[in-house]
Amino acid sequence: MGIQVYGFWRSIASFRVRVALRLKELPFEEIPIDILSGEQFKPGYEAVNAERVVPTFIHDGHSVFQSLAIIEYLDDIQPTPRLIPEDAKERAYARSLALMTVADAHPLVVPRVRNHLAKAFGADAKAIEDWGKHWTTEGLATYERLLARRAPAPFALGAELGLADICIAGQVVGAHFLKLELNAFPMVARLADRCFEMPAFATSHPFEQPGYKTASAH
Amino acid sequence: MGIQVYGFWRSIASFRVRVALRLKELPFEEIPIDILSGEQFKPGYEAVNAERVVPTFIHDGHSVFQSLAIIEYLDDIQPTPRLIPEDAKERAYARSLALMTVADAHPLVVPRVRNHLAKAFGADAKAIEDWGKHWTTEGLATYERLLARRAPAPFALGAELGLADICIAGQVVGAHFLKLELNAFPMVARLADRCFEMPAFATSHPFEQPGYKTASAH
Repeated sequence: MGIQVYGFWRSIASFRVRVALRLKELPFEEIPIDILSGEQFKPGYEAVNAERVVPTFIHDGHSVFQSLAIIEYLDDIQPTPRLIPEDAKERAYARSLALMTVADAHPLVVPRVRNHLAKAFGADAKAIEDWGKHWTTEGLATYERLLARRAPAPFALGAELGLADICIAGQVVGAHFLKLELNAFPMVARLADRCFEMPAFATSHPFEQPGYKTASAH
Repeated sequence: MGIQVYGFWRSIASFRVRVALRLKELPFEEIPIDILSGEQFKPGYEAVNAERVVPTFIHDGHSVFQSLAIIEYLDDIQPTPRLIPEDAKERAYARSLALMTVADAHPLVVPRVRNHLAKAFGADAKAIEDWGKHWTTEGLATYERLLARRAPAPFALGAELGLADICIAGQVVGAHFLKLELNAFPMVARLADRCFEMPAFATSHPFEQPGYKTASAH
């Protein structure tokens, strides 16, 4: 039955999962759920994902929710290339870096939160964009401070590409959405350049998805 | 040198780490960082935690950031009792459940976000409280739907207590802060009752910390 991923072109969490699958060379089918128009709240998708978010990963009828849990699961079932190091301290550092965007910066800028800012506070498009820029910049600044610790390593943990790089690249995708310059974050910018040179990252970028191209054409 | 945790009485992420340490019977010292008054932004703490958040876990000079990474690390260095199952599918489910609060519901209600709502949108105390109630309720509702799948299991995954229960209990702590009734979420309420009967949970609750008692006395 292979792998199916319910995702969305704009979803940074879907981006992370796409990259991990492609680094591991696991073929998958992506089924789009339009989280901008609220398709995730329809009963059909709630049966797939009780939290009504993307992505949902399905493999031979088994579902996994949440991008970080999906990537950990992929590392368990297909350990090469390994995305999370085997050494306990290094694993912990990889997860720490991942969670800085997964659990702190990114949750603040997703569509359901942006929509609720408008509803709860009457925030207009400009105010919501400024909110997004604030938290996206905070996340980038945190990564810049942390990358300095292992500079000039090519990747976040050192020589090997992995989970932390996928998550930092996702934070940079958030900057692309908001047209934020990365001049103040040169180490993050170099890491992202290195990542997006690789086909697994480049082909997974939201702007390279069919749904983006369709949306842009309208 | 033992274990030190920079935390704060009100921090739900600190609560999760306290519970995990106590379930594993690992002694630790908690060093308070007052995130309500902004102590996390002072230079001294930035040297400890580049993201300027709590908790920070330190063991023999080695730091781990982010509550979920800390709990995973504790499971690596002290595997009994195991908080994350060994089976790959069950591990994935435990992490999926954990991340629903760690990466979705909880990040929206932390002090730096509440403060920014006031600054960015002029939100008053009532509007900020309503924002907190909205996202806390969303998280509880997600857990209620998911707990139904394995009911009447005593814990989120089944017979064994673990990571998912710690995180769901943390979501319930958020409800306690906001004085939310749990009538609409009976399975979540029963799970939380079962957890808070255990000393590891009961003694870790924010309202049982010395900092809360000091703050309440003023």
